[in-house]
Amino acid sequence: MLDVVTFGEAMIRLTAPPGEALESAPHFSVHVGGAEANVAVTLARLGFRAGWVSKLVPDPLGRRVAGELRRHGVDVSAVVWASQGRTGLYFVEHAPPPRGMTISYDRAGSACSTTTPDDIDWAYVRGAQWVHLTGITPALSDPCARTVARMIAEARDAGRRVAFDVNHRRKLWTADRARATLEPLIEGVNLLIITQDDAREVFALNGEAPDLAAAIVRRWRTDAAVVTAGAAGAYLARGSDVHHEPAVAAGEIDRIGRGDAFAAGLLWGALEGDLLAGMRYGAALAALAQTYWGDVSWSTKEDVLAVLDGGRRRPAR
Amino acid sequence: MLDVVTFGEAMIRLTAPPGEALESAPHFSVHVGGAEANVAVTLARLGFRAGWVSKLVPDPLGRRVAGELRRHGVDVSAVVWASQGRTGLYFVEHAPPPRGMTISYDRAGSACSTTTPDDIDWAYVRGAQWVHLTGITPALSDPCARTVARMIAEARDAGRRVAFDVNHRRKLWTADRARATLEPLIEGVNLLIITQDDAREVFALNGEAPDLAAAIVRRWRTDAAVVTAGAAGAYLARGSDVHHEPAVAAGEIDRIGRGDAFAAGLLWGALEGDLLAGMRYGAALAALAQTYWGDVSWSTKEDVLAVLDGGRRRPAR
Amino acid sequence: MLDVVTFGEAMIRLTAPPGEALESAPHFSVHVGGAEANVAVTLARLGFRAGWVSKLVPDPLGRRVAGELRRHGVDVSAVVWASQGRTGLYFVEHAPPPRGMTISYDRAGSACSTTTPDDIDWAYVRGAQWVHLTGITPALSDPCARTVARMIAEARDAGRRVAFDVNHRRKLWTADRARATLEPLIEGVNLLIITQDDAREVFALNGEAPDLAAAIVRRWRTDAAVVTAGAAGAYLARGSDVHHEPAVAAGEIDRIGRGDAFAAGLLWGALEGDLLAGMRYGAALAALAQTYWGDVSWSTKEDVLAVLDGGRRRPAR
Amino acid sequence: MLDVVTFGEAMIRLTAPPGEALESAPHFSVHVGGAEANVAVTLARLGFRAGWVSKLVPDPLGRRVAGELRRHGVDVSAVVWASQGRTGLYFVEHAPPPRGMTISYDRAGSACSTTTPDDIDWAYVRGAQWVHLTGITPALSDPCARTVARMIAEARDAGRRVAFDVNHRRKLWTADRARATLEPLIEGVNLLIITQDDAREVFALNGEAPDLAAAIVRRWRTDAAVVTAGAAGAYLARGSDVHHEPAVAAGEIDRIGRGDAFAAGLLWGALEGDLLAGMRYGAALAALAQTYWGDVSWSTKEDVLAVLDGGRRRPAR
Amino acid sequence: MLDVVTFGEAMIRLTAPPGEALESAPHFSVHVGGAEANVAVTLARLGFRAGWVSKLVPDPLGRRVAGELRRHGVDVSAVVWASQGRTGLYFVEHAPPPRGMTISYDRAGSACSTTTPDDIDWAYVRGAQWVHLTGITPALSDPCARTVARMIAEARDAGRRVAFDVNHRRKLWTADRARATLEPLIEGVNLLIITQDDAREVFALNGEAPDLAAAIVRRWRTDAAVVTAGAAGAYLARGSDVHHEPAVAAGEIDRIGRGDAFAAGLLWGALEGDLLAGMRYGAALAALAQTYWGDVSWSTKEDVLAVLDGGRRRPAR
Amino acid sequence: MLDVVTFGEAMIRLTAPPGEALESAPHFSVHVGGAEANVAVTLARLGFRAGWVSKLVPDPLGRRVAGELRRHGVDVSAVVWASQGRTGLYFVEHAPPPRGMTISYDRAGSACSTTTPDDIDWAYVRGAQWVHLTGITPALSDPCARTVARMIAEARDAGRRVAFDVNHRRKLWTADRARATLEPLIEGVNLLIITQDDAREVFALNGEAPDLAAAIVRRWRTDAAVVTAGAAGAYLARGSDVHHEPAVAAGEIDRIGRGDAFAAGLLWGALEGDLLAGMRYGAALAALAQTYWGDVSWSTKEDVLAVLDGGRRRPAR
Repeated sequence: MLDVVTFGEAMIRLTAPPGEALESAPHFSVHVGGAEANVAVTLARLGFRAGWVSKLVPDPLGRRVAGELRRHGVDVSAVVWASQGRTGLYFVEHAPPPRGMTISYDRAGSACSTTTPDDIDWAYVRGAQWVHLTGITPALSDPCARTVARMIAEARDAGRRVAFDVNHRRKLWTADRARATLEPLIEGVNLLIITQDDAREVFALNGEAPDLAAAIVRRWRTDAAVVTAGAAGAYLARGSDVHHEPAVAAGEIDRIGRGDAFAAGLLWGALEGDLLAGMRYGAALAALAQTYWGDVSWSTKEDVLAVLDGGRRRPAR
Repeated sequence: MLDVVTFGEAMIRLTAPPGEALESAPHFSVHVGGAEANVAVTLARLGFRAGWVSKLVPDPLGRRVAGELRRHGVDVSAVVWASQGRTGLYFVEHAPPPRGMTISYDRAGSACSTTTPDDIDWAYVRGAQWVHLTGITPALSDPCARTVARMIAEARDAGRRVAFDVNHRRKLWTADRARATLEPLIEGVNLLIITQDDAREVFALNGEAPDLAAAIVRRWRTDAAVVTAGAAGAYLARGSDVHHEPAVAAGEIDRIGRGDAFAAGLLWGALEGDLLAGMRYGAALAALAQTYWGDVSWSTKEDVLAVLDGGRRRPAR
Repeated sequence: MLDVVTFGEAMIRLTAPPGEALESAPHFSVHVGGAEANVAVTLARLGFRAGWVSKLVPDPLGRRVAGELRRHGVDVSAVVWASQGRTGLYFVEHAPPPRGMTISYDRAGSACSTTTPDDIDWAYVRGAQWVHLTGITPALSDPCARTVARMIAEARDAGRRVAFDVNHRRKLWTADRARATLEPLIEGVNLLIITQDDAREVFALNGEAPDLAAAIVRRWRTDAAVVTAGAAGAYLARGSDVHHEPAVAAGEIDRIGRGDAFAAGLLWGALEGDLLAGMRYGAALAALAQTYWGDVSWSTKEDVLAVLDGGRRRPAR
Repeated sequence: MLDVVTFGEAMIRLTAPPGEALESAPHFSVHVGGAEANVAVTLARLGFRAGWVSKLVPDPLGRRVAGELRRHGVDVSAVVWASQGRTGLYFVEHAPPPRGMTISYDRAGSACSTTTPDDIDWAYVRGAQWVHLTGITPALSDPCARTVARMIAEARDAGRRVAFDVNHRRKLWTADRARATLEPLIEGVNLLIITQDDAREVFALNGEAPDLAAAIVRRWRTDAAVVTAGAAGAYLARGSDVHHEPAVAAGEIDRIGRGDAFAAGLLWGALEGDLLAGMRYGAALAALAQTYWGDVSWSTKEDVLAVLDGGRRRPAR
Repeated sequence: MLDVVTFGEAMIRLTAPPGEALESAPHFSVHVGGAEANVAVTLARLGFRAGWVSKLVPDPLGRRVAGELRRHGVDVSAVVWASQGRTGLYFVEHAPPPRGMTISYDRAGSACSTTTPDDIDWAYVRGAQWVHLTGITPALSDPCARTVARMIAEARDAGRRVAFDVNHRRKLWTADRARATLEPLIEGVNLLIITQDDAREVFALNGEAPDLAAAIVRRWRTDAAVVTAGAAGAYLARGSDVHHEPAVAAGEIDRIGRGDAFAAGLLWGALEGDLLAGMRYGAALAALAQTYWGDVSWSTKEDVLAVLDGGRRRPAR
Repeated sequence: MLDVVTFGEAMIRLTAPPGEALESAPHFSVHVGGAEANVAVTLARLGFRAGWVSKLVPDPLGRRVAGELRRHGVDVSAVVWASQGRTGLYFVEHAPPPRGMTISYDRAGSACSTTTPDDIDWAYVRGAQWVHLTGITPALSDPCARTVARMIAEARDAGRRVAFDVNHRRKLWTADRARATLEPLIEGVNLLIITQDDAREVFALNGEAPDLAAAIVRRWRTDAAVVTAGAAGAYLARGSDVHHEPAVAAGEIDRIGRGDAFAAGLLWGALEGDLLAGMRYGAALAALAQTYWGDVSWSTKEDVLAVLDGGRRRPAR
């Protein structure tokens, strides 16, 4: 039995070396990433049983996606291997301000976007303690949106818990469409995660991060809501209680996947029955994640605990 | 006024380092390629005025395609910049036998595939001495096929000459569909180029390469037909006359674009009014092209003539 | 239940770029390899359930070894994580003749070399159809030699079959010591694999490869013996019957692991109940393996069958 | 008709990877740069018609220089191809303080340094709205100095405008020699650009940057003078009016070419008839330029406007 | 006659590219380092006659160690070439906080650790003005500890001076064992160097850095003691006099070897008979050292003096 | 006392990666090479005392040249550090036929070309058993030619022996000028080395390689003459005796320096008093040299002897 199952698209990520441009770089480095897959990888590396459900094409890029997840210990036995479709891609440029990082998706027509409820092994999903979903997958296609909805229903029916990370993608749909689709989905989930900006843009909520967290719990009756506010840390609301967790100071190599690492930390806490601990885990994992190239952290549970314990100021020699 | 105008798709090419796999390579090198663009680049490097007509999206990858062609001297002033569509990609793995080279296209939905006759600056096309087209472009979409047909008609109407390289792409369409579309297009062109294999597969012709060349001239009333037979060289048929040009011995770094270099050599000869010279130029350019990474040769006219002159056996120091 | 279980050491491999020397190279590429692990990887990529038993230290290099195997689908759940020892290393230089390839091991004190029978989950081993072992592991240490002996005994007791690849390592022990240790182990195994050179050097057998194969079957009563003779192919002896399988012609990128790929092909055939097919699979896998950097082939079952089917002479486009 | 024509030397730039030394680096990255060429590239990328006049040798390095400029859209049709001389080089080391960046030129005997007025197509020069020159070119050789003087005279005679960026190069000549040569050249130019340090060192002016700018306008009767003061921004003096433009905050990847990007921004403004806008464009372009490896920015007009518009705080996804 | 002789182990250092992990990096860069060797390299680059005594195996890695030192001008003629043992390794990961840098040694069984007094050419040692030793070497093995003790005795007997850098290595031994071994060694040395942390941890001293320095001079009757305190600079105690030298501000590329560069600066001063100058040299060398990849600085004496002279604020062009 | 002293220019070599062009390569690898320096490096690696005399500038590139030689064990204590001049460069492209390798020198104005007899420490030169010179150095400048002539005179005067490798460089001077300068120099040298092509081109000799060798001995009264004929091996003439040494078969990574390796082998033999052995050493060293990137072989004496002993057919494991 799995601790957490996730469902979503993972893509091949092509990154220009830092300081180069997509227009100029002689080569692109190759990684694998996707919000839900990143969460599964982080959990698997921490020692949890994490499964990732998706649809892939059995060509070199599709096999690479599955292999990369498996390498970290994610269970990919429920992945559906499609006879059609392509592997989604995204292109990344890293640069300091004022240029900043750019992310361009090239994912239309991906195998994952054709996933329907019939593709899913529902027993597999129902067997996990937590189902973790994001607002990206429903934006990929109508069948994907229906699959997400069904997944939430199945999880509840099986007495499992649901985490949902809103992750609004402006390039995939408008805030209005996102809101219309996501509102029914997030109603009553056990753990809702959202950035401060998305809370305002997608759900037209007002106020500062702690208010937003409290408002979400009230409005959609979630057990808990976490609003992340970048360097200002994150806020966890449960009932009328709001807890603040400061961000862990960190240098930045590659910020992509930072939020997914945070979500994984929350789930770690949730699996231990301690969401406050999850807030700390999330803060440490998010900080560690941005010190690695690629979407995911290569850290271990010991590394995370060392960060929370004050970190290593000097390398032990 | 241009010497040669071409029309077709150019893509971003992502190549695994030699000996690696697309599934394993830590980075992919980035090139630009496309059959017609490769011909234009080769001609421009030789000093001819070559123009490339296509449709691109104005994002980093699309700009990269145009910039790379411009760098070699190709005129890209007639490229249409689209507001929709993507930049086509292809993935390449190089390996010795029995693994061999693999090429995978990911070009569905490209901006170029949406080109219609209305996108074209016909005065630009009519102003070139030769129009060079391939059988790839009609396979991309119906509008592309219509654009190619119109281009041939315009060229003839303006008294220009037409070269056509069949370049059958099994992954884009069947031999039957290719034949039905291409037959009306190649009827009466001034120069038809085809591989021995394509002549048999697409047009169901029989016999050895010299017979195939002669048969093509007879059947589609082309001024000239060149059938390429790999290491066995190439055959030029004009009327009932067939000339054999042996291949130039060459080590292999990257075979992709070899045929396009050969076609460029033929056009060089054609522009000088000497197709037999063009056969020699083509043989030398094809040999040189496969000694460079990427689709195109970085050689100059002097390099080509040196090869035909016996080559450099010892490097001059 | 597993199809094949293997036991042995996998190491971090550090390779100078081709044409460089270990003394000069600015960087070493990093791979994971080990004879038994290579066999497991190849089988897992082909779709078989392959498990690898070993002992690793839970530091970055040890985790890398396990992760790399898991990525290809090998089951590493029975790996023992040691609190002491190091991760073995080997250094590789690739060069054309007369310099040739060099391999230097730095594996003394490895965690794996401390494995004892008590470390092993014997139920796990007994559950596999085939147990695959090599002559390298007994050379690592006395406890390793005892563990190998016990593994053969357990497999037989459970009614499983045993494959043994002699793989003599001159740098680990002398031919005399190898012979004394290996003779009792190979007695009566179901499939013995050995190079022509090792047959002569370790077991002091005489004659050509087919004679050697037949002599082995007679002398140690193995069900089958395969003697490999490099470019001259391989010979399978069963009873008095000797079958010759020619080598598949192949360019060489990296020869290391070629023999392991061949052994995996034999096991594939054995699992299908057709050792003659296994000889063909092995020949194709060995050829493919040496077209990739690193110890293992990234090919799929389809790639292997394509090679046996005449290969791809032209890349499909 | 061109918007801007420039004249000067462009070189092959060889850069040690960051943190390496020229004495230690296993490889040098290869770029093309030169103050005037950098201005032309930036303007061409912004959509202006920019031409670069120079002298090159037709060997691989010379062709590379021309090709790299052409790639960005610079017109190089007026480049003279010399039968003698070499391609100038410069070597760059990047390092944090206290080591800092070092630039070493190896440009003696370059083809460009042999340019004489007779090499120039004066009709080409007279056809551009602005002629942009720097104080580097007169320092290369006497013939170069005479060519620069003639270019200013021709531009005036044709009713065109002249921009001059002083760019003092201590390694090429002394401040005294620079002053003697440059004073007659800058007299009455339409736009003079100079760093605060050069104003003091070459022209022995005193005071702070705003005073320097005003003094220059008074003394050499330029229409406008811009004094740049690094992080303190830049000052534009016209008549008695002095405007301050703060610098745009930016991370630093590679500072070389920052001043040239600023100059290109000024010319953009000048071409739009709005030098104040030019100050803003320059500030944004200078900031962007130092976020790319190499001398030039790969940004587009949209990127510049986005920076001026507050920049992208979050990458759009 | 040498200015300085050192004795200790140098290893092959394998470093993951910045932002990568040892678990993920596709390649490791290769350097040579070791505390005493780093000091010798720095001194040799400054123009001093520096000799390094050690034991190496004559394989590619051992030859690389010797060659790398020789390249910088270190005399390695007294290195003993062993017939057994291996070349020590260490693995480095660079990352920003909270992950930070990690260093893992894999040096057990190194040739150097088998050095005994009988291996040493004592005339060579006695001929140097200064003998520089560290607390690492005695931690490698008992024979090494005896060799260090003998070296101090020989130096004194020959009327030479001794410098000792404590350099405690937690991974090699405990503070208690270190103290027991090191106390007799440091008694009365001419120059003792120690970090503030080591002074507290190994010798159980209390107080701030200046107090620690004074206490060391008193307790072990050293001519001078230098306590380094990272960004807070260093303190030199002689008799009852304590001098503070602030650190030179520096960006960080690779901090390893910073302390060795500082020690080399002290020895430079000592050789000039001016330890206060040595404190300044050390501060500048330490700052420069951390701007280079690898353990050592590639700077020259002129570079050091330029840093002390205010540094280059602008690169001279 | 040295075994061999050489005098000549060493340069920084910049090489495009194989398959790239100087016009296209994103980076150039950096090596050090020069005919006489290559000989010195090879001899030093074999254990001989080899000194290299030259003139360098003390900038990073000049220091790199000296450091690289020192690394291999060459004595560079007699190098003159100039206050003017530059470090010579050469650019290399590697490609298979028909493109082949290209070498372009950029060495005009090098510090070495300004060497005069007054720069040389004649006692140093007179102290070596052999002086090794080439026909490249006299082609650099008149002062260099005078220095070479003086060096031969000094060697003879001191009773030392002289080896001279003609090494004609068409790009530096004509065959006529070479002949006029070289004839007096080679008169009576102890060992003359020349390629078959140079013998014909420079000295207008006729006949096949063995005849050429005999003719040289007769005409210039050399003790011995070796004529190399590429794959056909080499011919040693002494008096009327001519010995043929076949070439050792070798794959080709980088052919540059092959002839210098051969010359070093001859000197090895000469130092052992056995020129026939020298022919064998030279053949093996030349073969090994072309299996490494860069001008020099990283092999050891053991590697050479192993090649002569039949080579390693299988890597020892």
